[in-house]
Amino acid sequence: MSLRIIATGGTFDKQYNPLTGELVFGDSILPSALARARITVPTRFEPLLALDSLDMQEPHRHQVRDACTRSDEAQIVIVHGTDTMRETAEVLGKAALNKTIVLTGAMVPYRIDGSDALFNLGFACAAAMLCAPGVYIAMNGQIFPWNAVRKNRAAGVFEQTD
Amino acid sequence: MSLRIIATGGTFDKQYNPLTGELVFGDSILPSALARARITVPTRFEPLLALDSLDMQEPHRHQVRDACTRSDEAQIVIVHGTDTMRETAEVLGKAALNKTIVLTGAMVPYRIDGSDALFNLGFACAAAMLCAPGVYIAMNGQIFPWNAVRKNRAAGVFEQTD
Amino acid sequence: MSLRIIATGGTFDKQYNPLTGELVFGDSILPSALARARITVPTRFEPLLALDSLDMQEPHRHQVRDACTRSDEAQIVIVHGTDTMRETAEVLGKAALNKTIVLTGAMVPYRIDGSDALFNLGFACAAAMLCAPGVYIAMNGQIFPWNAVRKNRAAGVFEQTD
Amino acid sequence: MSLRIIATGGTFDKQYNPLTGELVFGDSILPSALARARITVPTRFEPLLALDSLDMQEPHRHQVRDACTRSDEAQIVIVHGTDTMRETAEVLGKAALNKTIVLTGAMVPYRIDGSDALFNLGFACAAAMLCAPGVYIAMNGQIFPWNAVRKNRAAGVFEQTD
Repeated sequence: MSLRIIATGGTFDKQYNPLTGELVFGDSILPSALARARITVPTRFEPLLALDSLDMQEPHRHQVRDACTRSDEAQIVIVHGTDTMRETAEVLGKAALNKTIVLTGAMVPYRIDGSDALFNLGFACAAAMLCAPGVYIAMNGQIFPWNAVRKNRAAGVFEQTD
Repeated sequence: MSLRIIATGGTFDKQYNPLTGELVFGDSILPSALARARITVPTRFEPLLALDSLDMQEPHRHQVRDACTRSDEAQIVIVHGTDTMRETAEVLGKAALNKTIVLTGAMVPYRIDGSDALFNLGFACAAAMLCAPGVYIAMNGQIFPWNAVRKNRAAGVFEQTD
Repeated sequence: MSLRIIATGGTFDKQYNPLTGELVFGDSILPSALARARITVPTRFEPLLALDSLDMQEPHRHQVRDACTRSDEAQIVIVHGTDTMRETAEVLGKAALNKTIVLTGAMVPYRIDGSDALFNLGFACAAAMLCAPGVYIAMNGQIFPWNAVRKNRAAGVFEQTD
Repeated sequence: MSLRIIATGGTFDKQYNPLTGELVFGDSILPSALARARITVPTRFEPLLALDSLDMQEPHRHQVRDACTRSDEAQIVIVHGTDTMRETAEVLGKAALNKTIVLTGAMVPYRIDGSDALFNLGFACAAAMLCAPGVYIAMNGQIFPWNAVRKNRAAGVFEQTD
């Protein structure tokens, strides 16, 4: 078993720019997060995109889909912004790639005190290793099939749809 | 689905005592780690023991086994010291409880910079939700059956045995 | 000797709002920063304003001046945004209050990894206790008189003017 | 003005060894702490010793004294364990070096959550720049002359002696 971790940006990976006072994207923090996790399973990291998920357009989602198609690893974790995570999951779900693809992200950036990012990354890695082929969203300690989940923006949590 | 999280101590939960300069146990940090993780799945926390796993004796392992037996939840995560995690897993494995029990811990305490604790907790929670009934050790981004794992102390990692 | 610490907002005190993805003001983190510092000198905390210093208008600076005038303590640290720290320092300097007033802030919020906030707070507290009455800006490990300093925004540092 | 920062070890600089579970000394974290502080004042760092201050013997204190004697900078911050900080301060005080020497340390290691280390470092740097020549201990937000201070070990704070 081996894992592919694909970065696309999102809150998880936002970093503070002291000159502008804004949260922006730089080099992904995922390599250092994975080192810290002391993973011994073979893992390949792919920095694909660095976007706020509100800025993700259809061509970006196709890039994500193509990266999954190309991936030699059949277990894939995608770190993604939460706002349109479901939309990207849908594109991947409909592509029916016969791989286990788990999207995760964070409500608080990795580099900010009290972040959920590292928990979510661990949770998503296990889900990618254990779930049947398919596309899932792993957030809030739950694993949702891509077609039965929505983000409740007022509460800041993912929920199952009926 | 609902989760039980049992604290037994271990490196994960060690905290610094400024007066003695030692790493000791106080109130478990697991409730704050779980809050930070923004889990929405029903979770019950049980602070059972607060021991360095090198100080764990057979009666302590029986306490852990009895806590698992009593647990209303069939998905259990046990936070445990790494040094004798395998020994406790063996006691639990031989008890054949028909629950999914996942032991995890940390190589660096939760409260110390660069800790693997939160990743491991997330990883173990997903494993507890997804694995078949049985007893597992979830460390280093891997899920090991209780009877096929050892800690390589020189390298500080868990490895599969033949 | 006793210290007054006045919060006015600024990068130092910005906190992440998971629902909006923005850095905003909530309850000041200064009380927890001061507790962490293990200060035994008598210290009074005053949460006066919670503003980005770019949003500070003349009436706000007068509020800061009036708070300094009213202060029973003759040693005052003001936590302030960096962008208009100099302008507020000028209002205070011209008021000639016969107190030692030290403005400080941060280039990275206290709650973000790698923040300079706690260093600056310690630096400013010592400066407030040791400098002669007057108004100073304490940033970048330097103590600048209020009328001989500017922020170099391109470099993100405070500099002495000629 | 320029600063010399001398590391001698102490709680401030202790780091966790995952293989032994102990707090030990490695490369000093002071260079990264100083970078984080965004200091622009010229600063020279000297990693002199890496000792728990309970292990400091008279020859070690002489090494510290000799480093201060040799220092081109007349403003010196020494990061030191708290338990025998006073004893080293006494050796330095009696040497009457006509420099401003400020000893500081931490009750909680820099790398552990909630550490006072960075505050103390900032506080000590300002004290070194502002105090008259002499030897001081800067802890708990106070500046104590070397011959009028003791550590209250039960309370974990430094206090003035009569």
